[in-house]
Amino acid sequence: MFVLVNLKAYPCDAERVARAAATVADDTGARIAVAPQAAHLESVAATGVETWAQHVSGAGHGSHTGSTLAAAVADAGATGTLLNHSEKRLRLADVDAGLRAAEDTGLETVVCANNPRQIAAAATLGPDMVAVEPPELIGSGTPVSRADPDVVREAVAAADEVNPPVPVLCGAGISTGADVEAAADLGTEGVLLASGVAKADDPESVLRDLVSEV
Amino acid sequence: MFVLVNLKAYPCDAERVARAAATVADDTGARIAVAPQAAHLESVAATGVETWAQHVSGAGHGSHTGSTLAAAVADAGATGTLLNHSEKRLRLADVDAGLRAAEDTGLETVVCANNPRQIAAAATLGPDMVAVEPPELIGSGTPVSRADPDVVREAVAAADEVNPPVPVLCGAGISTGADVEAAADLGTEGVLLASGVAKADDPESVLRDLVSEV
Amino acid sequence: MFVLVNLKAYPCDAERVARAAATVADDTGARIAVAPQAAHLESVAATGVETWAQHVSGAGHGSHTGSTLAAAVADAGATGTLLNHSEKRLRLADVDAGLRAAEDTGLETVVCANNPRQIAAAATLGPDMVAVEPPELIGSGTPVSRADPDVVREAVAAADEVNPPVPVLCGAGISTGADVEAAADLGTEGVLLASGVAKADDPESVLRDLVSEV
Amino acid sequence: MFVLVNLKAYPCDAERVARAAATVADDTGARIAVAPQAAHLESVAATGVETWAQHVSGAGHGSHTGSTLAAAVADAGATGTLLNHSEKRLRLADVDAGLRAAEDTGLETVVCANNPRQIAAAATLGPDMVAVEPPELIGSGTPVSRADPDVVREAVAAADEVNPPVPVLCGAGISTGADVEAAADLGTEGVLLASGVAKADDPESVLRDLVSEV
Repeated sequence: MFVLVNLKAYPCDAERVARAAATVADDTGARIAVAPQAAHLESVAATGVETWAQHVSGAGHGSHTGSTLAAAVADAGATGTLLNHSEKRLRLADVDAGLRAAEDTGLETVVCANNPRQIAAAATLGPDMVAVEPPELIGSGTPVSRADPDVVREAVAAADEVNPPVPVLCGAGISTGADVEAAADLGTEGVLLASGVAKADDPESVLRDLVSEV
Repeated sequence: MFVLVNLKAYPCDAERVARAAATVADDTGARIAVAPQAAHLESVAATGVETWAQHVSGAGHGSHTGSTLAAAVADAGATGTLLNHSEKRLRLADVDAGLRAAEDTGLETVVCANNPRQIAAAATLGPDMVAVEPPELIGSGTPVSRADPDVVREAVAAADEVNPPVPVLCGAGISTGADVEAAADLGTEGVLLASGVAKADDPESVLRDLVSEV
Repeated sequence: MFVLVNLKAYPCDAERVARAAATVADDTGARIAVAPQAAHLESVAATGVETWAQHVSGAGHGSHTGSTLAAAVADAGATGTLLNHSEKRLRLADVDAGLRAAEDTGLETVVCANNPRQIAAAATLGPDMVAVEPPELIGSGTPVSRADPDVVREAVAAADEVNPPVPVLCGAGISTGADVEAAADLGTEGVLLASGVAKADDPESVLRDLVSEV
Repeated sequence: MFVLVNLKAYPCDAERVARAAATVADDTGARIAVAPQAAHLESVAATGVETWAQHVSGAGHGSHTGSTLAAAVADAGATGTLLNHSEKRLRLADVDAGLRAAEDTGLETVVCANNPRQIAAAATLGPDMVAVEPPELIGSGTPVSRADPDVVREAVAAADEVNPPVPVLCGAGISTGADVEAAADLGTEGVLLASGVAKADDPESVLRDLVSEV
């Protein structure tokens, strides 16, 4: 199971979370990545943790003030990127362009989507993984694996029909090792989570619990 | 005269430009800042150069995946930010919100606008500076001070009517010390430029020329 | 006092509201306009009521599929347009462009904004009127004139400082003649309202009450 | 072959084009639809021609000022809608929502996309048809069927793999009956065109030529 921690724009200490994630990953062999604000990528990557961007633009080098260039996040140490998170939804054409920009710079990709139909569409565009996150459950504290297990099963089925099949992550409301285990039981290959780790008093112990059942 | 170098998403070596700018600023006493990609802010700031963000979001801490948080760019070492660049135009309400977010984190602000009417509107919102950049001249190699001096004069007059008056930078097509001098003669207090420095074989000598007449 | 009824995307009978507004305007001499969906402009205008668009694009004739062309809404019978409503916020440059497009086709304009600072910026761009609508009070049933009279007074003061002064409408939570009178007492020259009329069982009697104290 | 004429924001007489299309459709039995500005839907539908919207919002009834409500365009006489035209690109989630809104009001749907990969993604979302339009050929006068026949063939193949298969229209540069015939030969079931009809001195004769080889 891949545990991808999205720090969003939370007022957390990104380096502290990153060091905790690096430690737990080292100790347990679990795959854990941290996705900080673009401005924190360099210091997060310097901790040695697997580092992801929260978003990259579909545009390449050029006159794009204020964009988040795939090549720049890669320079800064990111090895993967989210695309189309429900808080940063992209135009269909820009999901495609963002995937191509990420590919060109060697970034791994997870495209987020709200429901199994959009998961199928996203998988068709050729990402490395997709993540299903029903928007109404994000930050709810109720794991999607319990609140709506069918949406996860249907997302896995939808991604399996694409050739080659695309691994599915499961987001929204994940906070414990039991949630991760339940997500695995539904056929997903990882989880996407945020506040459960970013807002924790002790991120390291939350991370240890998250990977405990894997 | 304030020289603000916007690196956009150009394929330049941001740290090299930053070191050149720091050197020229130290040697000459000129005020020179560099605005790199958000992902490069930390390494640019580490050179000691005055570092600016190309954009910040109006949103504060919270669930804003893929945003560029003012507090994060400040953490990373930025001391100012552009807002509403013609390549990253913002909603009126978001220019306002971005200014408040920048203020709250102590970032200095330059709001860009296309024409004197928009300069007046931007100045009304209370930025530290405004920058007039007719979009058709950006990257043209023809300085706005020569191609359309009236738009610069009218922008300065518009910003002067606001109480207190707001200093005006002049963008678009600036590449030489003579352009900077012409901009000063039109009443501006600085220049915003990009490709002239970012794409130069020798950024340091371009920067030396730019500040030579100040 | 100008009463501008915004039908938004409500499931109301736009022609019925339009006929009610035309009748009340005829009977009382009050100025009442109705702003329906663009697709309903022709049938609303055919009732003889003063007809407004909810939005127009800043783009002129050309390859702009799915835009709302100022010339098309004028053709359809609109004589004015809202711009930058809080549910259709525009980029600063597009408020400016929308105003120019409206001017070029003879449409009267009201630019909406959230607070006195944005009202000042909007007024600077030269609309015929501005409307202050604190987003948190829209649809609340509590009139802004009672919930936050200072924001209305400050908006009027901000628009008065522009030369020439720009009349201010007052939106958010208006539903009775007493609300309209309170808005007038605060220095506004009209009201912008929506659900109070659009969702009424008897729009005509609501409209009669709205203009009763004017 | 379905001929769908998009009037964009062209300065044409929408009713005149609509009458010409109605006449040619009646005379020849060909299927021809006209997609005008939303503000012209009522008068275009009144000609009896098959009438389409250029876009609908994914939002339903509610507080959505300036939106284009599916129910409103249906009221106005539209029986179908384009979605995600390259001049009105939508977020992936909004293509999905727009399709559901169109379905709920009985509108037929064509989702546009730039390339075969995006065609596959769009087809997965369940539209009635998809349209492939390489952006660089729109308005070029060079039919995509000649400039890049492979992109059309690959789009047809991509839409055929979805279950059930989704018919493909072919856009960009279509202006003659020979272009329509070439599009049919490549496996498409219709064409999407704009300036060739909208800017014609005699739209009726252009339309007669367009359907002559079908």
